[in-house]
Amino acid sequence: MLPEQVLRHIDDNMERYTDELMQLIAIPSDSMTASHAGDVRRAAEWLLAHVSRLGFNGRIYETPGHPVVFAEMCSDLAAPTLLIYGHYDVQPEGDVKDWHSPPFSPEIRDETIYGRGASDDKGQLFTYIKAIESILSTEGKLPLNVKLFFEGEEELGSPNMEAFVSQHRELLKADVIAVSDGAKFSKDRPAIEYGLRGLVYMQLDVTGPKMDVHSGVYGGGITNPATALVQIISSMRDGNGKSLIPGFYDDVRDISTRERKQLAELPFSAESVCELTGACTLVPEEGYTFLESTWARPTVEINGIWGGYQEEGSKTIIPSTAGAKVSMRIVPDQSAEKIVRLFEEHVRKVTPPGVTVKITRHAASEPVIVSQDSHAIKSAKAAVEYGFGKEPVFIRSGGSIGVVLTMKKWLEIEDILLIGFADPEDGEHSPNEHFRLENYYNGIKTTAALMYNLAQTKKLEEAAPIVERHTAHQQNSHY
Amino acid sequence: MLPEQVLRHIDDNMERYTDELMQLIAIPSDSMTASHAGDVRRAAEWLLAHVSRLGFNGRIYETPGHPVVFAEMCSDLAAPTLLIYGHYDVQPEGDVKDWHSPPFSPEIRDETIYGRGASDDKGQLFTYIKAIESILSTEGKLPLNVKLFFEGEEELGSPNMEAFVSQHRELLKADVIAVSDGAKFSKDRPAIEYGLRGLVYMQLDVTGPKMDVHSGVYGGGITNPATALVQIISSMRDGNGKSLIPGFYDDVRDISTRERKQLAELPFSAESVCELTGACTLVPEEGYTFLESTWARPTVEINGIWGGYQEEGSKTIIPSTAGAKVSMRIVPDQSAEKIVRLFEEHVRKVTPPGVTVKITRHAASEPVIVSQDSHAIKSAKAAVEYGFGKEPVFIRSGGSIGVVLTMKKWLEIEDILLIGFADPEDGEHSPNEHFRLENYYNGIKTTAALMYNLAQTKKLEEAAPIVERHTAHQQNSHY
Repeated sequence: MLPEQVLRHIDDNMERYTDELMQLIAIPSDSMTASHAGDVRRAAEWLLAHVSRLGFNGRIYETPGHPVVFAEMCSDLAAPTLLIYGHYDVQPEGDVKDWHSPPFSPEIRDETIYGRGASDDKGQLFTYIKAIESILSTEGKLPLNVKLFFEGEEELGSPNMEAFVSQHRELLKADVIAVSDGAKFSKDRPAIEYGLRGLVYMQLDVTGPKMDVHSGVYGGGITNPATALVQIISSMRDGNGKSLIPGFYDDVRDISTRERKQLAELPFSAESVCELTGACTLVPEEGYTFLESTWARPTVEINGIWGGYQEEGSKTIIPSTAGAKVSMRIVPDQSAEKIVRLFEEHVRKVTPPGVTVKITRHAASEPVIVSQDSHAIKSAKAAVEYGFGKEPVFIRSGGSIGVVLTMKKWLEIEDILLIGFADPEDGEHSPNEHFRLENYYNGIKTTAALMYNLAQTKKLEEAAPIVERHTAHQQNSHY
Repeated sequence: MLPEQVLRHIDDNMERYTDELMQLIAIPSDSMTASHAGDVRRAAEWLLAHVSRLGFNGRIYETPGHPVVFAEMCSDLAAPTLLIYGHYDVQPEGDVKDWHSPPFSPEIRDETIYGRGASDDKGQLFTYIKAIESILSTEGKLPLNVKLFFEGEEELGSPNMEAFVSQHRELLKADVIAVSDGAKFSKDRPAIEYGLRGLVYMQLDVTGPKMDVHSGVYGGGITNPATALVQIISSMRDGNGKSLIPGFYDDVRDISTRERKQLAELPFSAESVCELTGACTLVPEEGYTFLESTWARPTVEINGIWGGYQEEGSKTIIPSTAGAKVSMRIVPDQSAEKIVRLFEEHVRKVTPPGVTVKITRHAASEPVIVSQDSHAIKSAKAAVEYGFGKEPVFIRSGGSIGVVLTMKKWLEIEDILLIGFADPEDGEHSPNEHFRLENYYNGIKTTAALMYNLAQTKKLEEAAPIVERHTAHQQNSHY
């Protein structure tokens, strides 16, 4: 699958590859903290210089926020083109006291690199670069055309990617996209994601009296915005997690028998959810398992709610305003636009007299599901099996990755490979984030093999195109 | 009703009486702001010195918080004893920029004193003192025994009054209590309050996962504490303002035909509620008017609610915790203790699996209603009519005054006179609080007349005791 000398080169250079990754992690490219803006740019420049030394041709593209790194090595017009997406920005360090070693002074302990961004996403992104380097060093050329597309605002929700991608469709044109930002099913089990839920994220702002008023004087006589808000939200969801918004389930695609079987066979552990989150009573939708509910069924959730007096003790007011963030995860074949409309219509219908409601849309992204039977997915499966020595499981994700949908929509690319090399326990977004060297090594092998496999399958695909895809209008969002 | 020379003395001394009130207002006795603790004490000492000069015998009583001023002039064992309650502490000034003249540099504009505490409660409290002074200056003695009981923590919710009153039952013993802290029905219409709603103020804290978790990953699979909270609260109240807590209405006393007629005759203006609060759609309980709903019917209100993400934009979390302040106004013959129990039982019953709920009680005070036909009320009615030149209307209040209930309970005094001299527009608790000199003057006349009337009625009352009262266990609370 992988030329012997490429594999040997990987083996021989792992120490240096690790050192280089640690150099990248040492740049505190926290995109959320204004004072780190210079560091974010430094990471972009470091990456560009790094891939330029390998022979890539690219540059920094400015955006209204942090820059994009784009570089390509496209010489064989007959070969397929792989677009590799990753992000070089990282989460803030949080409270440094919670870290056993400084977040931006990466350290190896127990064959694991500790540092902010080690797993999300510098370590995963770097697997592709080191796979490329290994191939180039031994073979002199890549088996297919490669475009690198590294974002610096993923942790901000990719606010400028819709504009960037739509304005650079020719630049980003490719046959297959590989997204290097995900996780395995478990520490012992690699995975390929083939579905993401979409997200409709709304805000309700309810306004009643022009100021907080005395709940003794007016209680029982005027509409309390907080009470109205609770009434509105409770009308959207029954006690068993089913949405009550009329029409909500109209377009929901049934989970296929094959898929239910696949999901049932996954070694899902309720205990691990309990241990990880403290939520030890699972409440999947009636008639569905936990994985079915969280991956393939739509939800209505309150992400935030507020209004009135929130401090110690008691204050007897009817608040002037109250509000909530309410989000819905949606699945094929629901459409974000339609769900937004049904939500708005429902809110208008159930709002009690005496208050006004402002409805704001924060995000509306479509669900996505790709075939498990495409040639690209088969290539990926074989590559993961080679790299990790284990067959990957096919999983869906309950979350949404806005930029994936943006690329799918604007670049019209159906073959999107979501292969994660992180462990679920890596502590992404948490203190002591880490990335196991074993995953790094297996990831490099996987991505190298993926490039060879994809190069082989281009022709097969042209001979027998595979359809079975879901497309719809979508908007950019972060998870 | 009032000896001619007493009235003349009031007329002749109004300018000095006004100056003295302004001296009291100038002391920034804000009980909520720690840096004003010395000023609160200074106001207590100023008051004690002032009434001592009139011949009262009293002292400062310490509490765990701000002190109590108590002073008495009791010489006629055969005469009834009037206990006058008021408070000398005031609300914080708020934003000084909103004031047209400095809050603690009182100023007269348009025959009105502007300053923090002018209306609530220094101006109202001072009417009694100046009435007493006018009687003593002209008659040499009061027509009945008087005890002055001035609190320094009313704006904090009288946290130490339950202890103080229960420990000083002999000291505070009296036949009638006059509470000098209220308001007229309208600028043109004096009023006597004969009923207060009780208050049960609870807090719910719902806990689910041990930290905020990803709403994509776990949404649909675990219980969301904010969703659970909304579900719990919405189960307590239907869309028309009726409580759904089982047993809630069991002990509610019907509003009598006489009372409904009285309330219907009051010149209630929906426009003034609209203008004052911005709430222009009134939503009284079905089958009741606005005044009936807010004065004589129980409610369930959300005073505050919180949980999860409350900032700009979107964050896709299932919050770890959510909470709410939920209060119930209760009416005769509901019992606060029983309502607390019904509330707790209901919450336990409707809490969904996967979350735990902590229930905290912040306040539980009983409703109170006094007869409109007692001799004391009749004395008060005549006094108000004399002082204001208009018959007072009988009103109830939707609010609760904890200390009134505390005194009723511990001192076992049934005759409680709630006579307010403030206008509803006085801006209590707001910038540019004020007190009209006309109300001050009429208030002094009223309280002087009240003392003469009460002195007359003691014997009448002994001859024909009036019962028809509501008593029950109650706890201290502020509105």
